[in-house]
Amino acid sequence: MSEFDLIERIIAILGDAGTGPGVRLGAGDDAALLAVPDGFELAVTTDTLVAGRHFPAEARGDLVAQRALGVNLSDLAAMGAQAQHCVVSLTLPAPEVAWVEAFAQGMATAAHRHCVAVVGGNLARGPLSITIAAFGITPCGKALLRSGATPGDTVFVSGRIGAGYAARLAAAPAFYEVAPRLALGVALRGVASAAIDVSDGLLADLGHLCAASGVRGEVALEAVPIAAGVEPAAALTAGDDYELLFTADQAPATTEPVTAIGRIMAGAGVAVLHHGKPWSPPDCAGGYRHF
Amino acid sequence: MSEFDLIERIIAILGDAGTGPGVRLGAGDDAALLAVPDGFELAVTTDTLVAGRHFPAEARGDLVAQRALGVNLSDLAAMGAQAQHCVVSLTLPAPEVAWVEAFAQGMATAAHRHCVAVVGGNLARGPLSITIAAFGITPCGKALLRSGATPGDTVFVSGRIGAGYAARLAAAPAFYEVAPRLALGVALRGVASAAIDVSDGLLADLGHLCAASGVRGEVALEAVPIAAGVEPAAALTAGDDYELLFTADQAPATTEPVTAIGRIMAGAGVAVLHHGKPWSPPDCAGGYRHF
Repeated sequence: MSEFDLIERIIAILGDAGTGPGVRLGAGDDAALLAVPDGFELAVTTDTLVAGRHFPAEARGDLVAQRALGVNLSDLAAMGAQAQHCVVSLTLPAPEVAWVEAFAQGMATAAHRHCVAVVGGNLARGPLSITIAAFGITPCGKALLRSGATPGDTVFVSGRIGAGYAARLAAAPAFYEVAPRLALGVALRGVASAAIDVSDGLLADLGHLCAASGVRGEVALEAVPIAAGVEPAAALTAGDDYELLFTADQAPATTEPVTAIGRIMAGAGVAVLHHGKPWSPPDCAGGYRHF
Repeated sequence: MSEFDLIERIIAILGDAGTGPGVRLGAGDDAALLAVPDGFELAVTTDTLVAGRHFPAEARGDLVAQRALGVNLSDLAAMGAQAQHCVVSLTLPAPEVAWVEAFAQGMATAAHRHCVAVVGGNLARGPLSITIAAFGITPCGKALLRSGATPGDTVFVSGRIGAGYAARLAAAPAFYEVAPRLALGVALRGVASAAIDVSDGLLADLGHLCAASGVRGEVALEAVPIAAGVEPAAALTAGDDYELLFTADQAPATTEPVTAIGRIMAGAGVAVLHHGKPWSPPDCAGGYRHF
């Protein structure tokens, strides 16, 4: 099957996952054309998954597609953006048609689940990797930034921390079926003072947020909702959770599972207390390192 | 140097190439925020370059960056879009700081040259490759599509065909210093009935345009502006030119080098005539194949 035939096949499998609100022109031309509604701005993010590093090289195409889209959308969730569109660049060693078809099917499934249109992409030959650029919209000036936390704010996190780590260790489906907190992100507009998603590790990501805001973060270990069976040190540093970590001056009114885990103070850096006493992870890796 | 330090270094080198018109928030948060002016739509494209396939693995970082951005912007040129922004995903085997610094410098140079802001990106470890997603704006409904050619139109091409092939063979700087025809693309709004850029090869790309338009294309070989020293068969099939191939019912009023090379008829497919007689390239590869 030629490159062009394979692209046609992918577009056919994507079907109506290739279009949606704001799509003036989808895949098949030199570029896609997207509309951004008046009064909104576009949030843009990109993330790459490399076989053998971010997922096992023998992983199923449909699962890889779901993870690739999920981790990108998690960045949009952290901005409070409504996810809308993405372009998908797939690099693979050989035209393994069955794998590519599974990948396209997984992408269609994930796109439908998250109400995102796959408006274009690229196919290249090389070591297996996927790069997605994802686009969302936010009302002008309403995006959640990392930089708005102020002393006195409470630190909140969604879901259970360490669940992503446990899923990765177990090679469980949940590792691939990343569920970006898109609805929560939208609900936090005008409520959260700062936000980030937990990809590098809770402490590392809180560190990024505090550095961007010019503040100090303090986490109460006993308050952190840790996934069953996961060591606290691993949970706080392993990353891969794709939960939202945010600050606010009051608890948000939401049905999403959100837990207060600490507070923001003047200063710099991040500290962890266990029942009021300083605590250090036994092996604090400081978050997932890409190098 | 850690991943985060390396990202800081890249952002520092990019400097004011990281911002520009419409950039509400650049690199450093979970996503960038972009403004699209009222009455415009966003053109979005993505392309990947893999070391050892699309460029030599030992190529200089600054040159690779220039080619990576150039080939993406060429797709925006083919839409008649005004290039505005891009995100850059760099995957590399090890944190070779000097190479990455050269890459960032080349990206800054190319971004300035083409008036594009690098608003974000990603750094991952793996086999060397670069994926860029590039964004431009076009007045609503004014983008150049592949699908608008009609019988009676003339086929035009910019520049000299085969120049990209010659530069690739010679490993000449021109191979990396892709000059997307952005100004010509904008000038062709409302003038060209269809457009595509010459990346796969003139005949293959004319084939894509004709297929999308449901028409037949006929090229007069003697009219094609072929780069000096390049065999016509190679010039017409090799690709890599990043010139604009377009159709219009009259010659465009432009100072750009544009040549009429053929015509559009009812039917399907692409034919080449040499002084009126059917001509076939001795080794018609039908364009660059990614597989």
